[in-house]
Amino acid sequence: MFSEKVVENLRNSSAIRAMFEEGAKLKQEFGAENVFDFSLGNPDPEPPPETLDALRRLALSGEKGLHGYMNNAGYADVRAKIAEQLNLQSGRSLTHNNIVMTCGAGGGLNVILKAILNPGEEVIIFSPFFVEYKFYAENYGGKIVVVPTDANTFLPGLEALEKSIGPQTKAVILNTPNNPTGVVYPEELLRDMETILLQKGGRYSTVIYLVSDEPYRDIVYDGVKTPSVLKIFRNSIVGYSFSKSLSLPGERIGYVASSDRIDDVATLNDALSFTNRTIGFVNAPSLFQRVVAQCLDVKVDINIYKERRDILYDHLVKLGFSCVKPQGAFYLFPKSPLGDTQEFKRLALKHKIILVPGAGFGCPEYFRLAYCTGIETIKNSLPAFTALAKDAGL
Amino acid sequence: MFSEKVVENLRNSSAIRAMFEEGAKLKQEFGAENVFDFSLGNPDPEPPPETLDALRRLALSGEKGLHGYMNNAGYADVRAKIAEQLNLQSGRSLTHNNIVMTCGAGGGLNVILKAILNPGEEVIIFSPFFVEYKFYAENYGGKIVVVPTDANTFLPGLEALEKSIGPQTKAVILNTPNNPTGVVYPEELLRDMETILLQKGGRYSTVIYLVSDEPYRDIVYDGVKTPSVLKIFRNSIVGYSFSKSLSLPGERIGYVASSDRIDDVATLNDALSFTNRTIGFVNAPSLFQRVVAQCLDVKVDINIYKERRDILYDHLVKLGFSCVKPQGAFYLFPKSPLGDTQEFKRLALKHKIILVPGAGFGCPEYFRLAYCTGIETIKNSLPAFTALAKDAGL
Repeated sequence: MFSEKVVENLRNSSAIRAMFEEGAKLKQEFGAENVFDFSLGNPDPEPPPETLDALRRLALSGEKGLHGYMNNAGYADVRAKIAEQLNLQSGRSLTHNNIVMTCGAGGGLNVILKAILNPGEEVIIFSPFFVEYKFYAENYGGKIVVVPTDANTFLPGLEALEKSIGPQTKAVILNTPNNPTGVVYPEELLRDMETILLQKGGRYSTVIYLVSDEPYRDIVYDGVKTPSVLKIFRNSIVGYSFSKSLSLPGERIGYVASSDRIDDVATLNDALSFTNRTIGFVNAPSLFQRVVAQCLDVKVDINIYKERRDILYDHLVKLGFSCVKPQGAFYLFPKSPLGDTQEFKRLALKHKIILVPGAGFGCPEYFRLAYCTGIETIKNSLPAFTALAKDAGL
Repeated sequence: MFSEKVVENLRNSSAIRAMFEEGAKLKQEFGAENVFDFSLGNPDPEPPPETLDALRRLALSGEKGLHGYMNNAGYADVRAKIAEQLNLQSGRSLTHNNIVMTCGAGGGLNVILKAILNPGEEVIIFSPFFVEYKFYAENYGGKIVVVPTDANTFLPGLEALEKSIGPQTKAVILNTPNNPTGVVYPEELLRDMETILLQKGGRYSTVIYLVSDEPYRDIVYDGVKTPSVLKIFRNSIVGYSFSKSLSLPGERIGYVASSDRIDDVATLNDALSFTNRTIGFVNAPSLFQRVVAQCLDVKVDINIYKERRDILYDHLVKLGFSCVKPQGAFYLFPKSPLGDTQEFKRLALKHKIILVPGAGFGCPEYFRLAYCTGIETIKNSLPAFTALAKDAGL
């Protein structure tokens, strides 16, 4: 009666949502303060004061037309400011024409994939991967090809990448800092990756786009910098979101940026604006376009997340968990001591710890903890993790 | 190199946008005040005071979590208030489970069509039609079937509708008050339409959904009321937008409502929430969900539009144009005195009138005037229309 594909997808639905619901049940039974919910990537810090101030100023301004339509790609002046910032980071020469304001990075990735994909073309992703990529690519007839990463570093294997590229390869999706591992790919690795993309593209007379999903670009620790993809990759298209950097995930505001080095980029930019319109976004929310334009150099206090990472990571490693130390984002992706995580998940629930099994991310032997939750929750959860480790035989 | 379908669509791109650009050129040359731009459906009245107040209160509230994620379907309390309002209008028993908050009606229609369509299934629309329906249906493999309306009333012919329904028919898109004609379909007609949908569905053992695109539901004149689709159609799914009723088109806020009479509606509701997530909307903008919840009984002053309709309609009819009098929305759809509108469009440009040829709406002998533009523009345009009528031989 309904879309068969959607109903089938519903049946194997999001493990994250399932855990979220398990958590809700536990909270009702035991009280929210006694449940340690690490399921959702919903940043709990409030937006920075500068962002809230910008919102207040605009709301009080009485400015005419603040909530009206603009060009489907967004306000030209907002896009010009973003282009300028990206040029400083990348040394490129983008203009407002290379920027389309989007409903977050989730919207942005759909806008990009619809603009470039023909049915049957392949999109390479690295496992573990963000659950939604599969849906996004399939929305436009794309086929996902999964390339594994190194189990000790979660960095993509370049040989495996090279082997997975064929004449149907249209794009590689990059996500660094990574959800769910928190790993930041080093510049050297990205440069080698670019060499492969250009060589393979040359061999097949195709263009392989590097689609960079960057909601965590600004969430990095220990002095690490996220390398600029626009600087490194000739055929790069970036999907950025202010959801995490300004703690505005519900407002759906971000942008797509196309490299000025892409052949016939003017057509691509028209296509991005067209897909933004015809997927039904029409345009990114108008008020928040103006808000973020005033906050391009602002971000949430990263130390909030760093403190949580340190406490949780140190505790887990001390307990004997095997875990790569994240350099960015706000996730840990430890190995399950019991192999497949389904049994371990149930064990964790007994200790009122809500985690997400790794199967949905393509790595069933791992689990994800989102530490964008209150510091008190994290501190209070430590004895529960100690008890869980013991139960799991660590 | 890019999506072939998107590039092809770009080539035959939006006539509305083309006219908008013609207008921009003219304005640069002659000054904005000397150009009469009727191309865009961008409401010029500011949002009602209650809406701006609600926004200010929320922005100043300092409330925590105001900009965070919520359930993909939206805030449960906001959805419950909307369900309650719809129940009052329709006598149905919707709950928050029947409501998904969306990025306007454009987003809502995509969410609905992805949730119900299988590749090759047909979607019936009535000509003249809103340009985007074709793109929305094709996004999910749907095939558009166009059913003409009566040239004197712009009301759908029921016999033609009946003939166009086959075993592949999955949905009929209804748009009343209508863009571009401004016509409101009477309740009697809708009841007859429902009889046909149920009969044909019975014959083919299918369910034919009535997808109601309702951005103009509250923009009606002369005491006319928009009949409640939820009341009349068993298998109705509504896409509503606050863009026009609250003059918030840039903010992308609306909802989808499913009738509680639909078989297995729980699965449909899950599917709608899932497609809202996986098309990349994730959720409707959070702050404006809260704003509209405080303004469900508020709308812009309809007299602003009524005055414009009266002045422009009366003038055109006096000049000899053939035009159905709109009972809602803010468009006129007169017949071109020169047959095909391309030549007439060029003639209008000479008089600095920007109109949209009807070809894009499926009716090349007509043209659209959007009168959501300042009253001064409308008054100042009258002599230009007089001159145009003379040039066109009226």
